[in-house]
Amino acid sequence: MEDADAVEAQVRASFARQLFMRHLGAELGELGEGLCTVTCRPRGELTQQHGFVHAGAVAAIADSAAGYAALSLMPAGSEVLTVEFKLNLLAPAEGDLLIARGRVLRAGRTLTVAEATVSALRDAEETACAVLLSTLIRRA
Amino acid sequence: MEDADAVEAQVRASFARQLFMRHLGAELGELGEGLCTVTCRPRGELTQQHGFVHAGAVAAIADSAAGYAALSLMPAGSEVLTVEFKLNLLAPAEGDLLIARGRVLRAGRTLTVAEATVSALRDAEETACAVLLSTLIRRA
Amino acid sequence: MEDADAVEAQVRASFARQLFMRHLGAELGELGEGLCTVTCRPRGELTQQHGFVHAGAVAAIADSAAGYAALSLMPAGSEVLTVEFKLNLLAPAEGDLLIARGRVLRAGRTLTVAEATVSALRDAEETACAVLLSTLIRRA
Amino acid sequence: MEDADAVEAQVRASFARQLFMRHLGAELGELGEGLCTVTCRPRGELTQQHGFVHAGAVAAIADSAAGYAALSLMPAGSEVLTVEFKLNLLAPAEGDLLIARGRVLRAGRTLTVAEATVSALRDAEETACAVLLSTLIRRA
Repeated sequence: MEDADAVEAQVRASFARQLFMRHLGAELGELGEGLCTVTCRPRGELTQQHGFVHAGAVAAIADSAAGYAALSLMPAGSEVLTVEFKLNLLAPAEGDLLIARGRVLRAGRTLTVAEATVSALRDAEETACAVLLSTLIRRA
Repeated sequence: MEDADAVEAQVRASFARQLFMRHLGAELGELGEGLCTVTCRPRGELTQQHGFVHAGAVAAIADSAAGYAALSLMPAGSEVLTVEFKLNLLAPAEGDLLIARGRVLRAGRTLTVAEATVSALRDAEETACAVLLSTLIRRA
Repeated sequence: MEDADAVEAQVRASFARQLFMRHLGAELGELGEGLCTVTCRPRGELTQQHGFVHAGAVAAIADSAAGYAALSLMPAGSEVLTVEFKLNLLAPAEGDLLIARGRVLRAGRTLTVAEATVSALRDAEETACAVLLSTLIRRA
Repeated sequence: MEDADAVEAQVRASFARQLFMRHLGAELGELGEGLCTVTCRPRGELTQQHGFVHAGAVAAIADSAAGYAALSLMPAGSEVLTVEFKLNLLAPAEGDLLIARGRVLRAGRTLTVAEATVSALRDAEETACAVLLSTLIRRA
């Protein structure tokens, strides 16, 4: 999309319709061309059995960050759907804030490949806690 | 674990500590040797922008089903952690109930490989909506 | 494709053009609707540092088995390309014969999701040694 | 490993035992701490049905690059095995040379997570053609 404001408006409108993001307490952060940040504050209701944020919640914000990074490069009016993703957990997801940063690796006409890294922020220091590699499809 | 009751008690206790499962409204279903079922009823707060259950929520129940299938074959007192997983989405996750069925493909001393399928039940008919392939690690 | 003979002819012609399969010594086995078997005999030049068949060679036959399983369900004249795959290694790939069995999990108009299992045959006994989960795209 | 020369010697010795790399015509390039490059010249016997290098051959060099990047950070005398990997194909693998660059994302005591990118060099210009995300295990 050529108009950065239009892209941003479209991504923000789509994110707002993702009620699951609200349920997680996730927020849309910075947007750029092929880039998107989603943040989420760890809290009790997101945890797995050891008190860390559940891999499914980590996957959710990473998937959304990758998906909106992809959408940011698609023609206006497009919709984006996740085809598949792989998530590797690198360290426990805990701390003050989780930051998922999505980035497009290749934008095709139909398919986009994107990655997202998830960091845990604690006392102003970031630790990498997950990495996602995903395939997304454009729906006109 | 040799004692099926002990296994079941351990899995149910661990699942109960996964507050994220409660936040999703997910429930632990049947357990067997290397098998575990987790169900979740689609509702508004789990949805993505098209009204289907978000891939992250689908991933969460599939990951838990695979993880507890893995734990069911580990020595008593073990803990299980997800190393990584890949999720392919096959059809929109919607309907009356999502059913994630985890199954161990190979149980090693340290690492277990498991898969999970997620089906959407509507009017007593099941549609496959996702498949997950994951690696889990035992923590003594 | 409705005509099983035409499907088989198309798959066999495509496989024959995969010079890499010949380089591996891989052979196309049974074909069915959404099913395909590829076999390969372990030998020195396929090995990694411990004398097992290299994960890349295992991936190659599993990918081809999944790909031709996918092609078997596509309209006549289609071509199939791999979008991505994930491979989990379950046990050392060694023995008398490796057997990769591909199976379609969901055949869509554009994308197909398939899996393949790879078994090692030794003394008439099969051991599961790898599992692959992949996404394929149809090219008209 | 603290001694860079010893690391390099160990990696080169292991690579030389990977007869499959020789069968592909792959060569070990630069090594660094958590970094490893493997190159391979496209030629007929590595191709799939469209004349591009087969995804399995691309996976093989990417897997080896990631694996030796991982080994470079392990204690002397360690061996490395691939647990699993995911490969996304971004563009046809063709040209004068394929360059797989492995990089460690997280080096743990038992498990290492690494990625590799594969580029195709043609007329001194590189095009990204694949990305791999993998999990490796140390064997003492």
